[in-house]
Order: sequence, then structure tokens, then C-alpha cells
Amino acid sequence: MSAMETKLELRAELCEEILREYLPQADPCADTLVQAVAYSLLSGGKRLRPVIMETTGRMYGGREALRRPFMAALEMIHSYSLVHDDLPCMDDDEYRRGRKTTHIVYGEGMAVLAGDALLNAAAETALTAFDEAGSASENAAVIRAMRLLMKNAGLSGMIGGQCADLEAEDRPGEVDARTLYYIHKHKTACMIESAFQIGAILAGAPEQDIRALGRIAECTGVAFQIRDDILDVTGDTAELGKTVGSDARDGKTTYVTMHGLDKAMRDTEALSEEAMTLLDSLTGVCDREEQAFLRALVESLVQRTH
Amino acid sequence: MSAMETKLELRAELCEEILREYLPQADPCADTLVQAVAYSLLSGGKRLRPVIMETTGRMYGGREALRRPFMAALEMIHSYSLVHDDLPCMDDDEYRRGRKTTHIVYGEGMAVLAGDALLNAAAETALTAFDEAGSASENAAVIRAMRLLMKNAGLSGMIGGQCADLEAEDRPGEVDARTLYYIHKHKTACMIESAFQIGAILAGAPEQDIRALGRIAECTGVAFQIRDDILDVTGDTAELGKTVGSDARDGKTTYVTMHGLDKAMRDTEALSEEAMTLLDSLTGVCDREEQAFLRALVESLVQRTH
Repeated sequence: MSAMETKLELRAELCEEILREYLPQADPCADTLVQAVAYSLLSGGKRLRPVIMETTGRMYGGREALRRPFMAALEMIHSYSLVHDDLPCMDDDEYRRGRKTTHIVYGEGMAVLAGDALLNAAAETALTAFDEAGSASENAAVIRAMRLLMKNAGLSGMIGGQCADLEAEDRPGEVDARTLYYIHKHKTACMIESAFQIGAILAGAPEQDIRALGRIAECTGVAFQIRDDILDVTGDTAELGKTVGSDARDGKTTYVTMHGLDKAMRDTEALSEEAMTLLDSLTGVCDREEQAFLRALVESLVQRTH
Repeated sequence: MSAMETKLELRAELCEEILREYLPQADPCADTLVQAVAYSLLSGGKRLRPVIMETTGRMYGGREALRRPFMAALEMIHSYSLVHDDLPCMDDDEYRRGRKTTHIVYGEGMAVLAGDALLNAAAETALTAFDEAGSASENAAVIRAMRLLMKNAGLSGMIGGQCADLEAEDRPGEVDARTLYYIHKHKTACMIESAFQIGAILAGAPEQDIRALGRIAECTGVAFQIRDDILDVTGDTAELGKTVGSDARDGKTTYVTMHGLDKAMRDTEALSEEAMTLLDSLTGVCDREEQAFLRALVESLVQRTH
């Protein structure tokens, strides 16, 4: 295990701890739902989004107390999107990471409510950051972070991407290059953008760095998705944990079926290089070790083999 | 039509206008979802919740610009809860107010996303109130209103009530009096509480009035629900628009099957009287006409015959 991977694991454990701290509670009358929410949220996973937020926050010397509610909130949004995505009327998945999905364990109705409860809890949790804000500028940063979080999760962000993806599945022949990029960017990169930018915003990072982090997030998120399409063609079935070539057989339009394998590989390379160059150009960083960790993490995401 | 009903209709039109103003937009790639959201939100209805918020806001001389985003947000939350409630895995309704439900028109997957998008848009919309806040105290009021809005919509509020209701339907014999009250209070009264209190909070009403409005909301919401159970037994099928006695035939536990018709009628009477007494005791009201309108509106809700 590399030093980056060790640090990533340690940091994921911190995220687990934070998620347990902010786990929604309710009256015993709603106990089943509280359980369904806990089952959905505490399901393992790499906790990539809050780990990135923690890292950009530390890079700029931000206060942990202000950041923790947003780390929990971002993962709650990610978790709700998976619960609803797994529903029979969406992707219809019975397993995720080797565990039964929420609707298999608690029923479809309860899974719809668990997703709703997680999205709602995300907003409630992020709002508690106002209790931690100790100055007018921190207060303003919380408002800005809150607005970015919800925008990137909503119709102009993740949910918009999910809509386009759902429609693309119904008519694969009609998907054009712009729509495919829209799906990759909105379904994945928008939430990554929240992870990169909110840590920096709460820490009072310079505006030009916040902008650069936004573009780094887009490059990382889109490259990650293209990489997914590439692995479906070139990957090792055992290492990947899913059948190679399944996208093509499902008639799904991917970056590779649309642009060819060569261009897909060239484009991830270019996106990866752009992200690295931007990461090295940040001006307000006060913790170089964190910056190096983020660099290694981004590299592993865009060059992953499984 | 009474003066109250005329004013109610006029005010509902104002709410329609506000909803149209805050209607979520997105990229053309997510156009189907934008349409599904508009179809769900602009579906008529009495707009009771934003009308109440407008009224308590005016009662205390609050600024409309601060209130409008919250009026839209509250109705978006109400609307999303109906879209998800109508899904086949929940109440499985094909029609609502004489129109096909969202999942019938746009499909189940799109209806799940439309509900998610509306809840997310509610948070985004309410957050725009920070742009309107012109002082530290208005800023603090927006934070407080935002937290109340999300709390009353979530696991400690409406979603908690929906969970208990969903479970009660599966095992009607096991529902006790406390659970039934919990369902009535959380599924309905919590959102009514947001309507009553947020208008007053944003207007800077005295604390004791905000507290009283919370209790008025609880009395109104619970009495409204008990009234619903009474009408299922005593109502006129034609006037009611649904078959009288359907709850009892479905084996559903209602306030009437649990406590008997006499106690149900006495209890709505007592709740109604408590609400009226509290409404008359408010200390910080600066617009008596609005107070009288609210009184007439509450009366019509708890004494409704259809």
C-alpha cells in the first residue's frame, strides 16, 4: 500500500466517525426509517468526496469545526443519490459493494423515504455550521458553501445529470457528444466540485485558487468517468469486479463507443495533465504536504485500473 | 363565496405567480426533468401553506422580498412529498385533483428524480433569501427560518410522519394512540407549523407570538386530520369527492375507529377553541385585518365539510 493509500484510508476513517456523529435521529415511531438511513449511509465506501473536502480545507488552514458538517452533508447527498439510483424504476440493482441495496432490505417505499430523509438531513446538517461560524466572514463563507452544495446537487448539477443519463438509456442512438459530456460532468464532476471547492471556501482561500479547484474537479470527475468507459473495454474482469464489455453489449453510448479508444485515452491524459498543472499553480496553499496528497489522490483517480 | 374565500383565492394567485418566478431551470439536456418539475409544482391546489406564511408575515409587517423565496420553498417541499407519495411503491395513485400524477405522465424514474429535484430546489430557493437580507438581524432570521423549514420537512418532521404512516398501513392492528397522534402531527402539522412560524420569524415577531403560532399550527394541523377521519364516516360522498367509509373498509386505523366519533368531534372542537384563543392572544400583531383573515381561515380548515 502506497503512502497515499494509507493516508486515504486513515482519512476515510475520520469521515466514518463524522458520519456517525451526524447520523440523523428521530422519534421511535420513525425508527425503521432511522435504521434504513443508517444502513444506507454507513455502508463503507471510499468516502472520496469528504476526504477531498478535508484535504482542500487543510491545504488552506481551514477550521475543522466549520468543515465537519459539510463533509457529512456531502456524503449524505452522495448516499441518497445511490439509494434512489438503485431503485427498480432506476438502475434496479440488488447489490452494491457486496451488500443488499436499501430497497431490498427495507422495501421500495422505505427506500424512497430514506433517500428523501438523507437529502433533507444533508441540508439540516450543513446548516449547523452556522453555529460554528465565529465571524461575519465565516458566516458569509457558510452561506456560500451551502449554496454551492445545493446547486451542485440539484437540477443544475447531479440531478440534471441523472435525468440526462436516464433518458440516454432509453434512446442510446440519439446521444450526441455534448449530451455525453453533460452527463459525465453533471452526474459525477459536480459533486466532486463541491468537495474541492467547499473545503477551500470555508478556509478563506484566494478566489483564483477556488476557481482553479473548480476546474481541477471538472477535469478529475470527467477523466474518472472516461476512464470507467475505457476500463469497460480494456480492463481485467477479475480486477474490475464487473464484466468487461458489458456497456457495449447493453448498447450503451460511452466515451469509447462515441470517440474511439485512442481519443478516449488521449483525452483522459490531457485532462489529467491540466489538473496536475493547475494543482501546482495554486497560490494560497499553506500546507504543502496536503497539496502533495491531493496530487497523488487525483492521479490515482484518473489513472485507476479498477 | 365568503370574504375569506375571496381573499384566499386572490392570495393563492399571488403564490402561483411566486412559484412561476422560482420555477427551477436547467440545461436543455435535463429538459424532461424541468417539465416534470413544472407539471408537479404548477398543478393548482389551494396553496394553503404559502398563503398562511404570507398572512403571518403581513400580520407582523414583514418584508415581502424576504418571505417570497420561503413561500416558494415550502410549496416545493409540499409538492415533492405528493409526487413521491403517489408512486406505486407508496400510495400508488394515478390521479390527483383530477390530473394524472407525475409518474403516470413522465414514468416512475423521472418522478423519483422530479421529487428529488423539488426538495433540492426548495433549499436552493430558500437560500436566495440571504441576497435580500439587509441587516445582521434579517440574516439571523433567514438562518433560523431555513433551519426550521428543513427540520419540519425531515426525519423529525414530515418524513418521520410518512414513515410511521407507511408502517401503520402494513400492520393496522398495532397502531396505538401515540403513534396515530405522531402521524397526524408529523405528516401534516409540521409543515403547517413552518407556514405559521416562518412568516413571523422573518418579520421579527415577538418570541412568545412565534411560540403561540407553533401551537396554533399544531392544533390546526391535527384538527384538520381528525376532521378528515370524521368526514370519512359522516361526510357526503358527492361533496367529499371520495367514497364515504373507505378508511373503515380498508381496515385503516383512524382517529374515529380508535377513539369513537363522539370523542373525535369533541377533540377537534377543543383543538379549534385552543387555536382561536391563542390567535386572539397574540401581542405583537400590527395588522388586525390579516389576523382576522387568519382566524377565518383556521376556522374553515378545522370545521370543513369537504
